[in-house]
Amino acid sequence: MTGGYTLIGRNASPYTRRVAVTLRLLDQPFEQIKLAPSRDAEAVRAYNPAGRVPVLLLPDGERLTDSGFIIDYLLETHDLWGRLLAPRGPRRRRALQRLALVLTAQEKAAYAVRASRQRPPGSEASPFETALRSQARTAFGLLDESLADLPAPEGEAELSQDAIAAAIATSFARAADPLLLEGLSLPRLEALTARLEAMPAFLAQPLEAP
Amino acid sequence: MTGGYTLIGRNASPYTRRVAVTLRLLDQPFEQIKLAPSRDAEAVRAYNPAGRVPVLLLPDGERLTDSGFIIDYLLETHDLWGRLLAPRGPRRRRALQRLALVLTAQEKAAYAVRASRQRPPGSEASPFETALRSQARTAFGLLDESLADLPAPEGEAELSQDAIAAAIATSFARAADPLLLEGLSLPRLEALTARLEAMPAFLAQPLEAP
Repeated sequence: MTGGYTLIGRNASPYTRRVAVTLRLLDQPFEQIKLAPSRDAEAVRAYNPAGRVPVLLLPDGERLTDSGFIIDYLLETHDLWGRLLAPRGPRRRRALQRLALVLTAQEKAAYAVRASRQRPPGSEASPFETALRSQARTAFGLLDESLADLPAPEGEAELSQDAIAAAIATSFARAADPLLLEGLSLPRLEALTARLEAMPAFLAQPLEAP
Repeated sequence: MTGGYTLIGRNASPYTRRVAVTLRLLDQPFEQIKLAPSRDAEAVRAYNPAGRVPVLLLPDGERLTDSGFIIDYLLETHDLWGRLLAPRGPRRRRALQRLALVLTAQEKAAYAVRASRQRPPGSEASPFETALRSQARTAFGLLDESLADLPAPEGEAELSQDAIAAAIATSFARAADPLLLEGLSLPRLEALTARLEAMPAFLAQPLEAP
């Protein structure tokens, strides 16, 4: 018992890493128990029977799952002024629309990477895996376009959930499979990712090797 | 221009169907343009370049994507008393936690079904597809357990987003692949689904053949 939060999951998961970076940006200290669903299945299930990370343990012992809903809770509790996500209205809508694009790109990338790791080395990608890769590439391309109207954040005080998630998804996709985004031109996304990865909250929660 | 909402997508998609049922429960009239990402890819991309449904067109022409974020917007706009989802606190947290389980089950089921449709008829499931099926079954089993503390809704006025989503995910999984949940005992989930599927908002938005 630390009286604070405990986060279950490794920063190899972009879902876990977004929660970790958000906790840093909200100045909430936390312990991180670095378990992976693939390697530490039983230990993860002790925290979440569905076997997924991240899980957030609250100080009273309650367990929250699903990164989107964990962040919903953290913002409701610690972001009363809506700094990281506007609480309502058109600004919220614009952020959630960009976030939807990020989450599509990330989900397709994560499933494509899983499909490729579960086939025998050297074997050809299935039509399903090929479709996932193509959908991930399309979504990252659209995300790059959508950044045209997002001013580059000067510092952590200007970050919002959509920008945070975009940088984390991009770093994840590049590290998890160097071929996934090969040949795509993503100049805005690359500039945003480089800028955010150099900020203290990101440096304190580096991507771990998948 | 009807002055109202337009929903893009078929009720074959559990994501689209949850938005359609939610619009009914909020007494919001809407037109539905029944396009499928697989068969009508180009037409869908005209509404959402990422090629996913549902898309909700607002009366002013704005386009919203991602069922979770569309519902966030609809509840912010039309559910001021938090009838379909508590706006904050422990009741919101309990609903979102059950919803997380539903969305895991539904996502794994949807990917498993896609993987099985994209392989040659008669061929064996890949390890990836087998893992997805197993994760979907586990999540539906956990969801059934989690319903132990949800009182059976007597009528539409008692529905919340977690119950709505649970019924829609179950109907989808059973229809999309009769083998997916075969042999699983899901008594609470079956009772809830039967009850909700008999309510007017569900009867008005029946599941379409995938």
